[in-house]
Amino acid sequence: MEKGGEISMTNRQISGYMQSYRLKRAGTLDELETVKEEIPQVQRGEVLVKVKATSLNYRDLAMVHNDYPGGVADNLIPLSDGAGEIVAVGEGVRRFQVGDRVAGNFTKEWFGGKRPVYTEPYGSHSDGWLTEYKVLNPELLVAIPDHLSYEQASTLPCAAVTAWSALHGPSPLAAGDTVLTLGSGGVSVFAIQLAKLLGLRVIATTSSDKKAEKLKELGAEDVINYQSTPNWGEVVKERTGGVQRVVEVGGPATIKQSLQAVANGEEVAMIGVLTKEGDKLDYFDIFGRASTRTIGVGSREDFENMNKLIADKKMTPIIDSMFSFDQVREAFEYLASQKFFGKIVIRHN
Amino acid sequence: MEKGGEISMTNRQISGYMQSYRLKRAGTLDELETVKEEIPQVQRGEVLVKVKATSLNYRDLAMVHNDYPGGVADNLIPLSDGAGEIVAVGEGVRRFQVGDRVAGNFTKEWFGGKRPVYTEPYGSHSDGWLTEYKVLNPELLVAIPDHLSYEQASTLPCAAVTAWSALHGPSPLAAGDTVLTLGSGGVSVFAIQLAKLLGLRVIATTSSDKKAEKLKELGAEDVINYQSTPNWGEVVKERTGGVQRVVEVGGPATIKQSLQAVANGEEVAMIGVLTKEGDKLDYFDIFGRASTRTIGVGSREDFENMNKLIADKKMTPIIDSMFSFDQVREAFEYLASQKFFGKIVIRHN
Amino acid sequence: MEKGGEISMTNRQISGYMQSYRLKRAGTLDELETVKEEIPQVQRGEVLVKVKATSLNYRDLAMVHNDYPGGVADNLIPLSDGAGEIVAVGEGVRRFQVGDRVAGNFTKEWFGGKRPVYTEPYGSHSDGWLTEYKVLNPELLVAIPDHLSYEQASTLPCAAVTAWSALHGPSPLAAGDTVLTLGSGGVSVFAIQLAKLLGLRVIATTSSDKKAEKLKELGAEDVINYQSTPNWGEVVKERTGGVQRVVEVGGPATIKQSLQAVANGEEVAMIGVLTKEGDKLDYFDIFGRASTRTIGVGSREDFENMNKLIADKKMTPIIDSMFSFDQVREAFEYLASQKFFGKIVIRHN
Amino acid sequence: MEKGGEISMTNRQISGYMQSYRLKRAGTLDELETVKEEIPQVQRGEVLVKVKATSLNYRDLAMVHNDYPGGVADNLIPLSDGAGEIVAVGEGVRRFQVGDRVAGNFTKEWFGGKRPVYTEPYGSHSDGWLTEYKVLNPELLVAIPDHLSYEQASTLPCAAVTAWSALHGPSPLAAGDTVLTLGSGGVSVFAIQLAKLLGLRVIATTSSDKKAEKLKELGAEDVINYQSTPNWGEVVKERTGGVQRVVEVGGPATIKQSLQAVANGEEVAMIGVLTKEGDKLDYFDIFGRASTRTIGVGSREDFENMNKLIADKKMTPIIDSMFSFDQVREAFEYLASQKFFGKIVIRHN
Repeated sequence: MEKGGEISMTNRQISGYMQSYRLKRAGTLDELETVKEEIPQVQRGEVLVKVKATSLNYRDLAMVHNDYPGGVADNLIPLSDGAGEIVAVGEGVRRFQVGDRVAGNFTKEWFGGKRPVYTEPYGSHSDGWLTEYKVLNPELLVAIPDHLSYEQASTLPCAAVTAWSALHGPSPLAAGDTVLTLGSGGVSVFAIQLAKLLGLRVIATTSSDKKAEKLKELGAEDVINYQSTPNWGEVVKERTGGVQRVVEVGGPATIKQSLQAVANGEEVAMIGVLTKEGDKLDYFDIFGRASTRTIGVGSREDFENMNKLIADKKMTPIIDSMFSFDQVREAFEYLASQKFFGKIVIRHN
Repeated sequence: MEKGGEISMTNRQISGYMQSYRLKRAGTLDELETVKEEIPQVQRGEVLVKVKATSLNYRDLAMVHNDYPGGVADNLIPLSDGAGEIVAVGEGVRRFQVGDRVAGNFTKEWFGGKRPVYTEPYGSHSDGWLTEYKVLNPELLVAIPDHLSYEQASTLPCAAVTAWSALHGPSPLAAGDTVLTLGSGGVSVFAIQLAKLLGLRVIATTSSDKKAEKLKELGAEDVINYQSTPNWGEVVKERTGGVQRVVEVGGPATIKQSLQAVANGEEVAMIGVLTKEGDKLDYFDIFGRASTRTIGVGSREDFENMNKLIADKKMTPIIDSMFSFDQVREAFEYLASQKFFGKIVIRHN
Repeated sequence: MEKGGEISMTNRQISGYMQSYRLKRAGTLDELETVKEEIPQVQRGEVLVKVKATSLNYRDLAMVHNDYPGGVADNLIPLSDGAGEIVAVGEGVRRFQVGDRVAGNFTKEWFGGKRPVYTEPYGSHSDGWLTEYKVLNPELLVAIPDHLSYEQASTLPCAAVTAWSALHGPSPLAAGDTVLTLGSGGVSVFAIQLAKLLGLRVIATTSSDKKAEKLKELGAEDVINYQSTPNWGEVVKERTGGVQRVVEVGGPATIKQSLQAVANGEEVAMIGVLTKEGDKLDYFDIFGRASTRTIGVGSREDFENMNKLIADKKMTPIIDSMFSFDQVREAFEYLASQKFFGKIVIRHN
Repeated sequence: MEKGGEISMTNRQISGYMQSYRLKRAGTLDELETVKEEIPQVQRGEVLVKVKATSLNYRDLAMVHNDYPGGVADNLIPLSDGAGEIVAVGEGVRRFQVGDRVAGNFTKEWFGGKRPVYTEPYGSHSDGWLTEYKVLNPELLVAIPDHLSYEQASTLPCAAVTAWSALHGPSPLAAGDTVLTLGSGGVSVFAIQLAKLLGLRVIATTSSDKKAEKLKELGAEDVINYQSTPNWGEVVKERTGGVQRVVEVGGPATIKQSLQAVANGEEVAMIGVLTKEGDKLDYFDIFGRASTRTIGVGSREDFENMNKLIADKKMTPIIDSMFSFDQVREAFEYLASQKFFGKIVIRHN
């Protein structure tokens, strides 16, 4: 793949050309094209980030296939998760300086407190991170932990912050509590890693003995095979007396068992919709049992708090595989296979 | 009705006989009988309460009809809600003294913090309040506000504390938030009254114009007729942009509309099951919308905090009608009619 | 006073000249001068505010007299509190549009959650609001309640948000709690007004019977003359059994009595330093008594939450007096007199 | 030492004699005597505990020397901290059964939520645990973790719960935060142990290199010698940028340095008064810096939450030394020496 022309730096501005991926129209991967564009110039109060790595989430795939709730605008740059280096700063910027290592917060203007009513997600309503350079309001960025590479840091914005919010957000678990995770996707793997740092016990589900081993290595105290044990929720309840939290990434097909697994008065944190079909819920599936709460990733403050812990404990994200900037199509196809353990990353150079 | 014999007080003990109602076996009102029993004697650390008034809740009716989840033990004294005067105290009691005016906390040993896993509800698993005298651990009682009669105070333990927990419990609303209440039962009427003291806006539903007027007098800013507006949830969403809380007393038949009414990220507080039938829920009825949480009345601390506000603002409960101690059957029948507005009370002498 | 030349609006830009006050060097009011400057142009992501009103706080006076902790940079525009209308928006701005009515948040980049470590206060480290036009990142602004004039809204950023944080911030009081306020300055008057909306009881201090009357009109249940009752803290303790919160605006001269007034385990919210001298504190003045916490105004989310309540209850700030844009010196002198009740406002046109 | 006569168990009652220590009159250790008393009989709703071990705290010494705030009633059984086995239960007790292993909660009727206004501390206002048998309301007891001996469990009620409250109580620290502990007493050692389970960083002070080694073994990341570094608070601030919490056990002599060590907006948790003299505090020692909060041990819920973590992580308390039931005097003298590291325990048989 051809890179974006000559780069020159004058007076803190970088000029020249860059490559971006743009999804011309949501539908298929064929609509994803690279375009040559001018590197954007910082204005007052802005910073320019040289994007070093991005990571993929299921929602990115849903966008490509036009299967994302709320729709996908034409011709946007995909991907919500990216990390890079500040290479230019505009007048009056104090939050960062040239050379700082940063990642974007997933929910752009959610700085803390309640989530803003209106947001413009990267990739569906505004340009995302699958590009070489990106100009941003510095308030939309967080510093990344020193011990992480850009590739590792690029995995954090969506999956890790979601796992953090599920465990430690509005209703934080107490050390000693038990959490149930489902499968080996990005959020679930981060949930296990973070749970161990937070003093929580973990019981995980998976479909293969090999993955079960990996989940135990990450710290899961117990693993249940959800294929050989289709009533895994009830089994979790029996073994634990009911967990304090379920990190529910499955959706319609798993919610019933997840509600079975949780102790009365505790919570199912609903995150995703990896499945589309499932039995309908009875009123008494939710009444008198667990609370349910939908996790919408998290605020910049959540991200920063999580980073503090990750930095202190030197936690490293689990990367399943890395692709180069011209292998984006292959990366998406691998994501669709659901055969990975942890995160899929794209190196931008 | 014959009263319970001579009363004498010696050395802070009261001896003699009293009348109690006991439900011989759950099933019908015919199983509810009065029995003459010895007044219990306080032992170390206990108090004796002369019960002055009790109030009824739907759950009491469900117990009589053997329709209460968890079952009803034979031969217990019914009713969870009672208020009375301390007439004897055992050795070492410091929390109360003779003459103090008290009510029982609904969830006996829930003093604060998380709800205990195991409880023995009054009326279904332990003797309740439909009696003339009751001996208790003083920790199970709270002082009642000075400005309330015993009849008024007897309405608080279940319905008012439930309304309080729904508005101000684990996830307290902020002044200026809007709450949706359903109908004119005890919890809903208390929710409106307490909401006004907490600086909340109220939108209520009802089936009659007459009740609508009463609800507005209590402070509801807006009232919707749920019979002429079967999609009341959507209408509430349109008018308010989504409420911050629903006090959901309906159950299966109302939950879908309640979920429509709430703003994203806010909460449906699930309280009761006045209805038994309704459409099943789709996963997407709860995912990405409101949180759901079941309210289990509240702790002694909740009750005491609520009383502080009630006392300060001189709030008075709405009593629909009062029955005498020998009209208990009529009181239950009136409760079954669902034609009241506020609470039904039994005076014990 | 001469106004800033011709104004023309082309393509959402406003050009021409404006008047600003600048404090050439902190020291005396004589250093405060008006200068004619070009109206700043919005760049990408920015908005231009036509400032309609500003309000004064003691800290502004301290800055003029070079008595502000942290120092005051030369040649800055003073005043932290201003309100105005958006008259131009830059590319990509979604938070506000032309015509919106806004005020600036006092602590600029504090959006929610924990206060940022580093901030650049208006007036001491960055240009404040005593000017005709101001270009800003829209994230630094909040919408103001519809029922307030610009003059009224200009009083909110420092004093009202401080009072709000003291009552409802990190450790929110419960309805029915009692708060002690000191005197009749901006924060104290707002504290009384907000306390009433939050269902709190108020006991206030003052030095004059006339002000006592006004404080009672605002809703204080009780007022103590601190001159005739120098041990007012102990008297408050006697009368109330100890308050749940003190809104401590006095500083060294009042802190000892404030600590006397508060119930064990409750809190003194330390806000200001209207006094400079006082007895030293003994360890046992703070150990085993109240918690102490310094209030640093509040976040944008605090401001927005407060505005929701103010809008809902149609609360109007108490303005003592208004000055025109060319009477700024007189306004500062009046502020120094300490003879007012409520806020001092400057109208910008 | 002679034991308390024959023990017989009939119908869940235990009769016979036992030995208790009683402090005839606060003043000196000479006033501490053993007395032979009848084993108390359980009444309805009570349990009888065979006390197996007690532990000492500085406050116990202060009581003996009549140096305890609030005074010490004559002729009470000393010691707040004890653990034992339930050997008899009265009618209606459901919380525990014979054979259960329990410890007493320090603040008797504080079950959760806000601390009760009035309490009757063990040892100063009511009989404590330095006896062979003790009859109690079972609500005043908590189950102890299975992996702990009675001796280990007896160390928890005061020191461990205090440390827990300081770290995780009303204002819980977040994993990754840093805490400063002072010295090697019971609370400080527990604070270090619990901090590690909670994902916190620890910086500790001590006066000896030998103790410094032990503190590091427990998990302190950094240790400062407070004798060779009298400005240890400033040094902590330099090294850490300011800690998020100080577990302040020192009192007047250490508070100034503790306030130096803490980051702005964070908290000094004030626990004790190991020292009596120190410089007075200036208003600006507390204004604009840390919050201060006095820790009053904790509620039963705090104790139970802590136990859940201790059980899950198999944490074991550090016992410096154990004394037999007839070596109580020696135990108190050793406590006075301040030469220990961790807790001092008395075995009751």
